[in-house]
Amino acid sequence: MSILKSWSQKFLFTDFYQLTMSQVYFDYNIHEIEVQFDYFFRSYPNYGSHQAGFCIFAGLETFFEWLSQAKPKKQEIEFLKSLKNNSLKPLFKKNFLTWLKDIDFSTLNIEAIPEGRVVHPHVPVVSIKGPFALAQIIETPLLNILNYQTLIATKAARIKEAAKGQIVIDFGLRRAQGFGGNAGTRGAIIGGVDFSSNTGTCFCLGLTPKGTHAHSLVQAFIALGYSEEEAFWAFAKTFPDNCILLIDTINTLESGLPNAIKTFKKLKTLGKNPIGIRIDSGDLAYLAVQCYKELKKAGFENCVIVLSNQLDELVIHQILTQIEQEAQEYNLNPKEIISKLVFGVGTRLITSAGSCSLDGVYKLTGVKTKNSWKPALKISDSPAKTLIPGDKKTYRLIDTRGKAMADLICLKKEHPFDKEKFTIFHPQDSKIFRTLYKKEILKADLLQKPIQQNGKIVYEFPSLIEIKKQREQDLKELDQGVRRLINPHIYHVSLSEKLCHLREKLIKNYRNKTLTVKHSLD
Amino acid sequence: MSILKSWSQKFLFTDFYQLTMSQVYFDYNIHEIEVQFDYFFRSYPNYGSHQAGFCIFAGLETFFEWLSQAKPKKQEIEFLKSLKNNSLKPLFKKNFLTWLKDIDFSTLNIEAIPEGRVVHPHVPVVSIKGPFALAQIIETPLLNILNYQTLIATKAARIKEAAKGQIVIDFGLRRAQGFGGNAGTRGAIIGGVDFSSNTGTCFCLGLTPKGTHAHSLVQAFIALGYSEEEAFWAFAKTFPDNCILLIDTINTLESGLPNAIKTFKKLKTLGKNPIGIRIDSGDLAYLAVQCYKELKKAGFENCVIVLSNQLDELVIHQILTQIEQEAQEYNLNPKEIISKLVFGVGTRLITSAGSCSLDGVYKLTGVKTKNSWKPALKISDSPAKTLIPGDKKTYRLIDTRGKAMADLICLKKEHPFDKEKFTIFHPQDSKIFRTLYKKEILKADLLQKPIQQNGKIVYEFPSLIEIKKQREQDLKELDQGVRRLINPHIYHVSLSEKLCHLREKLIKNYRNKTLTVKHSLD
Repeated sequence: MSILKSWSQKFLFTDFYQLTMSQVYFDYNIHEIEVQFDYFFRSYPNYGSHQAGFCIFAGLETFFEWLSQAKPKKQEIEFLKSLKNNSLKPLFKKNFLTWLKDIDFSTLNIEAIPEGRVVHPHVPVVSIKGPFALAQIIETPLLNILNYQTLIATKAARIKEAAKGQIVIDFGLRRAQGFGGNAGTRGAIIGGVDFSSNTGTCFCLGLTPKGTHAHSLVQAFIALGYSEEEAFWAFAKTFPDNCILLIDTINTLESGLPNAIKTFKKLKTLGKNPIGIRIDSGDLAYLAVQCYKELKKAGFENCVIVLSNQLDELVIHQILTQIEQEAQEYNLNPKEIISKLVFGVGTRLITSAGSCSLDGVYKLTGVKTKNSWKPALKISDSPAKTLIPGDKKTYRLIDTRGKAMADLICLKKEHPFDKEKFTIFHPQDSKIFRTLYKKEILKADLLQKPIQQNGKIVYEFPSLIEIKKQREQDLKELDQGVRRLINPHIYHVSLSEKLCHLREKLIKNYRNKTLTVKHSLD
Repeated sequence: MSILKSWSQKFLFTDFYQLTMSQVYFDYNIHEIEVQFDYFFRSYPNYGSHQAGFCIFAGLETFFEWLSQAKPKKQEIEFLKSLKNNSLKPLFKKNFLTWLKDIDFSTLNIEAIPEGRVVHPHVPVVSIKGPFALAQIIETPLLNILNYQTLIATKAARIKEAAKGQIVIDFGLRRAQGFGGNAGTRGAIIGGVDFSSNTGTCFCLGLTPKGTHAHSLVQAFIALGYSEEEAFWAFAKTFPDNCILLIDTINTLESGLPNAIKTFKKLKTLGKNPIGIRIDSGDLAYLAVQCYKELKKAGFENCVIVLSNQLDELVIHQILTQIEQEAQEYNLNPKEIISKLVFGVGTRLITSAGSCSLDGVYKLTGVKTKNSWKPALKISDSPAKTLIPGDKKTYRLIDTRGKAMADLICLKKEHPFDKEKFTIFHPQDSKIFRTLYKKEILKADLLQKPIQQNGKIVYEFPSLIEIKKQREQDLKELDQGVRRLINPHIYHVSLSEKLCHLREKLIKNYRNKTLTVKHSLD
């Protein structure tokens, strides 16, 4: 069977050890005990010379699409049945595979932060409660889907911020990881990209695909004995209402631009307005200024100027900075030029260049025995890797300026705002804390929502437009320092007093080799 | 329609401009003229602190799978029909869409270098000849599929080189780009990884999936009131023939290792041999030495030691170097220890961390008019970006030591080895050349093979095992300096005299604004 069919093996789209561990749980009869796993990430993407100060969560609906289609197929069970151990006997036991073929992922209770929301390290983004083996098996697809779309949504949000509201188009498909490009386009759209050239995904998501033309069009016309101008005119005749011309195949200012202007004048005589030009090489800021100057002179000051070629948030930021300075040397208004720009972003968006993976993890945080939940801990030498145990909820605290001041993680059943004054703690170091007064807080926004409960989806997945509004709202609530492209201010993620104390106690017990705590979590 | 269905829109898995350009070609009646496009890359992946000195080509069979399934579906044509231009009229014309729905990609004649072969910059890896619009439309999927698998195969080859023949397992699925992880696993296997944990792809490729267990198994047992030792025993009982224990959940040397040894002793009483341990954190080299020492003392010196946690070629190289030094302090033979190691490689393999895209491009190099081929050129200010025009073939020259001395690109119809002595030229600078004598060359290995001709596949795609043999053979032919992990010696890629002169002439014509050459290419 071909690699192209791998996508259809949805149940098997997982790491093998999830299945061998499930066999162990089955043999120990703990495969159906209730457990809790949390999905969270530990740090913002660090692109080397710059680092994100927030992430945009994406991938949740895709994960649920996977979940709804992940019931094992007969051939998947047959494959597992065919595997042998090192004594050449069947690796998996018959009664386990019989149980496995009928598993039902809808029995998992799932809470999550909605897509498009700003999210921060340590905050549980998705929490899964349900039968142990089921919650274990979904680890890999959950991480795969949420890590990557969140990574790309975050990169897209940064690029859109740098673009100061100008349109951004995803051109990344050719440098994506195979079909992963489809998920990348969805993440990019959630993060703030306006359009994509990925035609199949646009079809599937109800979007309008966008594009201009390639150098090969001009090259082919020239090889056939035509000129660049004739190539442009061929394009303009076919798309008189949608004419954007790529002007850097020969020489941007000496050939492409004058030929484009000639073409636009001819279009004008047909009563059509050209849309614009694209520049894909050279000093993009300088060329944008020069092209705007000539276009304006020729009466085409409304043309858009699409820029592409290894763009990312820093390159775009620098282009805008340079235009601000350079435009004035030609007595042009830089704001006018910038308002014409469109950014085509490819490789560095779809790969999140500089930080090509999100360190999202999926960790066991609780186990239910005899009807009471016990928090599960994993200690690490690195405090940042020690888990936040138990069943939790998170509030985003909005201050009286309307700005997000902190995300407060607390125990599910506590009421942190009962008192006029309360203390919040650093997520790794309980010696660092801060007292807050209720009156300082305008709003406490509960981030996690129930998504799947008692076998049913209880959540209406928002449209991409609604997700976009949520993202814009969340970004507005962030301080400018946190939104900064380089060296952003670190946003506060804190623990409630009760949660901090529970964790401290568990760590102490753990260090005393007691390793389990007697009290149940409530 | 959901994002998860995007994979099934095979024809639309392309950039939108391929389709708008095709409409232009159709209107100009040049959509079916014969053209040639070459796929090649311009530079080896550069990982920052280190750089590849060769690439391993992968993805060809996957591309042909895509091609065989890419005939437009009715719903894909309907989608294109529904798109509007800026005057709200249909963007695409009816007669174009009627033509489009019946296109047949098997009419493309395709040559390529086989998968698993060592490949170098500028060498045409795939050449496509056929109807212009068809050759244009496949650009995006071709780049997507070949760039990514080649990138990962190259990273895998480096990791396998660093591992000095020890087994390497792909654990990357959770950090891959959605379904792109499947293509990544295939690339990793072609590049030299021995196994993968990606169960679905192993199923599809006929491989045996591998894995150990996760921390969550130990954590859960502890939360349920059991001990680490009991967790280990549960695993051992279920898989007495395949027992590998993850020993770093609590403390590797104080808890995990002694508990693993106790478990192995119990297994032994059942007549079973344990397979080994896995370590996923800490100083892996130090811990491997310590664990080997204790395992040997307990009579388990044959146990494998699986190492994982952010491994790549440099980290593995350093682990081996450290073990070479450190083992002797404990009177242990480092070779013995190293022979027990297995490397589980995740994020940094599947994302090709440090260089997360290959700069492979697909460029028009020839156009056929009036029954003769004309070479197409694109000049760039950067000589490295100026195309090598025309229809070409490439020989790998093997010297009398049996080592590859250069890849020689020449015109398809020339016979470069007719003379006893010939000159080869630098691919960008014709002032740099070198004279070779026929007697210096043991073998001239023609790299490109016909794959699809006159509507038929004329090539038998090799099995993964055959591809692996090819890779091993090609690597053996490389000088050690080229294989070096850091700062490798630059392998020579050269042009024949005829090809170099053709290119020079075209550049001169181009600069003289003649832009086309009169003579046909032969």
